[in-house]
Amino acid sequence: MKVYLLTIGDEILIGQVIDTNSAKIAQMLHGIGGVVVEKSAVADDEHAILDMLRRGLQLADVVIITGGLGPTKDDKTKTALAHFFGVEMVEHMPTRKFVEDLYRQHKREITPAVVQQWMVPANATVLFNKMGTAPGMWFSQDGKVVVSLPGVPYEMQYLMENEVLPRLHKHFDGTHIAYRTILTSGEGESTIAKMLEPFEDALPENITLAYLPRIAQVRLRLTVRGQDPKANEALLKQKLEEMLRLLPTELVASTEDDVLESAIGKLLRQKGLTLATAESCTGGYLAHLITSVAGSSDYFKGSVIAYANEVKMKVLGVRESTLAEHGAVSEQTVREMVQGALRVLGTDLAMATSGIAGPGGGTPEKPVGTVWIAVGNNDQVKARIFHFRRDRERNIQYAATYALEMLRRFVNRT
Amino acid sequence: MKVYLLTIGDEILIGQVIDTNSAKIAQMLHGIGGVVVEKSAVADDEHAILDMLRRGLQLADVVIITGGLGPTKDDKTKTALAHFFGVEMVEHMPTRKFVEDLYRQHKREITPAVVQQWMVPANATVLFNKMGTAPGMWFSQDGKVVVSLPGVPYEMQYLMENEVLPRLHKHFDGTHIAYRTILTSGEGESTIAKMLEPFEDALPENITLAYLPRIAQVRLRLTVRGQDPKANEALLKQKLEEMLRLLPTELVASTEDDVLESAIGKLLRQKGLTLATAESCTGGYLAHLITSVAGSSDYFKGSVIAYANEVKMKVLGVRESTLAEHGAVSEQTVREMVQGALRVLGTDLAMATSGIAGPGGGTPEKPVGTVWIAVGNNDQVKARIFHFRRDRERNIQYAATYALEMLRRFVNRT
Repeated sequence: MKVYLLTIGDEILIGQVIDTNSAKIAQMLHGIGGVVVEKSAVADDEHAILDMLRRGLQLADVVIITGGLGPTKDDKTKTALAHFFGVEMVEHMPTRKFVEDLYRQHKREITPAVVQQWMVPANATVLFNKMGTAPGMWFSQDGKVVVSLPGVPYEMQYLMENEVLPRLHKHFDGTHIAYRTILTSGEGESTIAKMLEPFEDALPENITLAYLPRIAQVRLRLTVRGQDPKANEALLKQKLEEMLRLLPTELVASTEDDVLESAIGKLLRQKGLTLATAESCTGGYLAHLITSVAGSSDYFKGSVIAYANEVKMKVLGVRESTLAEHGAVSEQTVREMVQGALRVLGTDLAMATSGIAGPGGGTPEKPVGTVWIAVGNNDQVKARIFHFRRDRERNIQYAATYALEMLRRFVNRT
Repeated sequence: MKVYLLTIGDEILIGQVIDTNSAKIAQMLHGIGGVVVEKSAVADDEHAILDMLRRGLQLADVVIITGGLGPTKDDKTKTALAHFFGVEMVEHMPTRKFVEDLYRQHKREITPAVVQQWMVPANATVLFNKMGTAPGMWFSQDGKVVVSLPGVPYEMQYLMENEVLPRLHKHFDGTHIAYRTILTSGEGESTIAKMLEPFEDALPENITLAYLPRIAQVRLRLTVRGQDPKANEALLKQKLEEMLRLLPTELVASTEDDVLESAIGKLLRQKGLTLATAESCTGGYLAHLITSVAGSSDYFKGSVIAYANEVKMKVLGVRESTLAEHGAVSEQTVREMVQGALRVLGTDLAMATSGIAGPGGGTPEKPVGTVWIAVGNNDQVKARIFHFRRDRERNIQYAATYALEMLRRFVNRT
């Protein structure tokens, strides 16, 4: 089943909103054999919408439209669809009742803009949206399907899961897809590509290997396409094992589709170890990465964000003389931060970061991007200096991610 | 100047990578009057690349291509461009020297995949990429321009800023654009749309108002298009003042293009107040939001992430009896967390969060999404319960953002 994704909204083109919906929808379609063949984003403009809708219907079996359903004046999707199918706009009574009840409950006035929420093209099958006021819509014509969903991510996701995927699965017999992603960490894309070159060259036509790099990580995804789901799975399993044999053990952070923070969570849970962080330049981002994993309270106890030096001293017990002699961004400071975190938060393991995220604060000796990271337990602490030299946001992301990678190797070796 | 954005890479269509580049490029183009008229993402497939390149050149003056330049086998952009322009691939010596030096320095082997990095179509003007090994390229033909950039965000950004924007500015005389964005916080899009309805209806043709909603925030952007930059600016100023008069003062968090965390930073700096956080369910994300703002060390001192109850007691001084009687997710607990943070971190203001981010941990009385937030100083603490009922990631984002909004109103009223 080929799918065309069409995103509507000036806010996407203007660049003030990042389109996360397309990636999410593509992931959700995998499970039912849906392949996104192309995607486009057009302005809130009827001409542009119809242009790309026609293109989408030429290239694919299904066009999924997101966005352009809100109550404000710049939303033109529904009238464009009505014109495309040559139908009138009509009231959808269940949506009307739902929206009216909601507004009554919150004591908000029902303005003319709100009334637009329950108007739909007459040929639409309404996909009832209990997460918001804009209904989803399903259109079927000449064997092809057009779906229109609100752009709000959780509303889109709710409707995809509960309405669109089951209907698409029923409507089409797709080629089956099997895929598996593993996580490597600590080596770059070209190094891994070289290790896997003979393997990749010998892959049959219906298997692809994709490299998905992230900070300090490369995910490797094998995808098998074919008519027989069982044969797909068997071939996938065989090729995955072959690939894993070609990679050094320490490189593989997870044989599942993990990010580093979830791979580390599994490792810590398996070893029964607890963790704390003591953060200066990462400012809580490291703790956030760790706690973004569901169930992280099993191994993560807490953190001291010691942004100011007085917090480093008062809460973590970093010595005044250490800060005076070596500075906050130094090996000695991050070592004492680890020791302080272990003591104050009472964990088996701790990580500490101290650096210059930028844009200000750099010096010739310690330019922006200089970060000290330490990882340790009560027996030993390992410290390492990094020079990321990127912007503030990325320096923080790099520091937190390399701290996780240092922790992974530390736990694996001790 | 009309611009078409073309993103290349299976990883975008498969949905494993979110496309942040397009938004960034669109923002960067604003300053030189560039308008993104449409954008598309296609697979690493020569046919698809050429198809959309032709479409882009029909619709726009400039096509900016990102992605598809890496060293692995799934990257086909450069050969597609060579075929499109009917030229050979040639070595680019400065890139070769740079890449060879880099590999020698890191003691990495130069594989055939690496050699591909310094090959470019013969008609390319190479945009030297000192941030990575894939060069950017500039092509000019029949008055139109094609630019190809690596997909790695900071490499793309470096080349856009230093090479592409200056060249485009020189190459085209665009219609000038003036725009201004303000930040409102605490009311939804439809409420604000209603307040501004008469204003919006009366706007001249060359001005648009866009609503850009985020969690707890709606940004409002006025854009003026016209030939005369001075007239644009004057009209923009007038309309902005008109719009601000229609909005309640408390609703406007910033008259600049801020996010809530930077608006709060300005407020705290202006009032000379210091801030700390004590976080349970937000797990460091609140501190991260605050410290994502450059210069936040002026007012942010630090945080205690008290994920485990023993940390709440031991470090923040939350009473054992409070946790036993009311639970960790309770008004009493977040109030004591605020008091603990004020005492331990020695700041003027503190915020605390405690809730159930999910997916586990919910009960009938306190379902997933229940979050208590408190904000206060040494005189008073305000606490409020929220029911976000979203997924883990969004519950954390909502909790942190509403904490910031509570802080903003607290500081404005005290």
